[in-house]
Amino acid sequence: MAENKLKIFKLGGNVIDNNQELENFLENISKISEDKILIHGGGKIANKYLKKLGIEPRMHEGRRITDEATLEVVTMVYAGLINKKIIASLQKFGCDAVGLSGCDGDVIRTTKRKKESIDFGFVGDPDEKSVNADFLSLLLSSRLTPVINSINHDGQGNLLNTNADTLAYFVANSLAEIYSAELYVCFEKPGVLENVNENDSVIKNINFAKYQRLIEEKKIDEGMLPKLKAAFETLNSKVKKVVICSASDVFDVAEGLTTKGTVIEL
Amino acid sequence: MAENKLKIFKLGGNVIDNNQELENFLENISKISEDKILIHGGGKIANKYLKKLGIEPRMHEGRRITDEATLEVVTMVYAGLINKKIIASLQKFGCDAVGLSGCDGDVIRTTKRKKESIDFGFVGDPDEKSVNADFLSLLLSSRLTPVINSINHDGQGNLLNTNADTLAYFVANSLAEIYSAELYVCFEKPGVLENVNENDSVIKNINFAKYQRLIEEKKIDEGMLPKLKAAFETLNSKVKKVVICSASDVFDVAEGLTTKGTVIEL
Repeated sequence: MAENKLKIFKLGGNVIDNNQELENFLENISKISEDKILIHGGGKIANKYLKKLGIEPRMHEGRRITDEATLEVVTMVYAGLINKKIIASLQKFGCDAVGLSGCDGDVIRTTKRKKESIDFGFVGDPDEKSVNADFLSLLLSSRLTPVINSINHDGQGNLLNTNADTLAYFVANSLAEIYSAELYVCFEKPGVLENVNENDSVIKNINFAKYQRLIEEKKIDEGMLPKLKAAFETLNSKVKKVVICSASDVFDVAEGLTTKGTVIEL
Repeated sequence: MAENKLKIFKLGGNVIDNNQELENFLENISKISEDKILIHGGGKIANKYLKKLGIEPRMHEGRRITDEATLEVVTMVYAGLINKKIIASLQKFGCDAVGLSGCDGDVIRTTKRKKESIDFGFVGDPDEKSVNADFLSLLLSSRLTPVINSINHDGQGNLLNTNADTLAYFVANSLAEIYSAELYVCFEKPGVLENVNENDSVIKNINFAKYQRLIEEKKIDEGMLPKLKAAFETLNSKVKKVVICSASDVFDVAEGLTTKGTVIEL
């Protein structure tokens, strides 16, 4: 087991939509000196372009149904517009970064999800052990920050869309095999809230028992539910630390200067 | 002077538009075993999306006028849709490739063109000596093929669009300092034609004197003129070989198995 520290940041859509908040977040990320990886989607901007192009965005339980026309648009928005905007900003802040979709350097491989009760279309689930850690390590050891978007491929020439939270958990699990990996899930709220309308109701720690109790008591907001569900279902205990926090607190949280945010106890 | 061979391929828009021709080209590129770099734009697909979004594409002498809305769309199309489609296909053919805009790894830096008689908008001219050859060499020496699109940055957080031919010449010049570099400009025609309607009228060799004579005789097609002009104005003699050829002939031309195409004698 290598002891190299690696901090993985997942950035949520509402922050990406707000230019000033996005800039602040990227400036803070640039100041974090350890090896780091950023993972993002970009739902709202994709929806804006889908609507402009006359395509109705379709979601099921917080996850996008991706037909062929939608796949083209999300590829353009996530891998093109948002990813390059993020990279250009990071460069401005002195952080040398490289944007990656799963196909780049074959960094992540996925398989098209089978039709079940819902046909999600061109959606890819990550293939076990497919993370190309050698390539990511090559970049990291050259002081480059990989910025991964949620467009992946299947190795057969097809692009597939993956939920960005799922992707972040998958990458964190995989890299925890060779790094001392921490995951920071950053979004517009200060953490998991006991009352979704009160920003001072942050739950400091959640373990699996507490997560189940909060669900029974219907205390978890609908938007937060898939994040927590995926965290407890997919993250493994090799990931050293998982925190759900505000994008604006990311520097202090990741540097251990504050106890803000919600710590997930795996 | 290192003697490592490097083949740089520029792929033109009409081939990118045709899925079958694009696949054939990428399959052929995958078979070329030497270090290689692919550079592309993607004009026609960008125009299709611009029109769908209600933005009228504007060109001046074969070069795109890029206002803010157009910049977003070309970033989505070149860096997102086309670049990732190309990378996924190359992976299918066993060629491990990485898509790059100029901001990725700070690989190319550009400066926004000053307004003159024409305001080209968010168009970037490459900064002298800005090619990050260390980063490209890191990828090449790891058996990765960089695939560079024409979206660049200025180091201040701004994205800028660069003509893909200009970019290819610029990258070839820069890398010719450390590689034995050859440039193949690939498009839908079999070379520079004496008569644009006759595919068997390929001019085998053009030097500067012949180029000037052909212009005087108005024998060069309008679409070809900027390519040749830029070649003779910007390419330097360190680039070992420049051939303008059909994308469908690329393997035989690059491997020296045929004399098809037009050799530019610098």
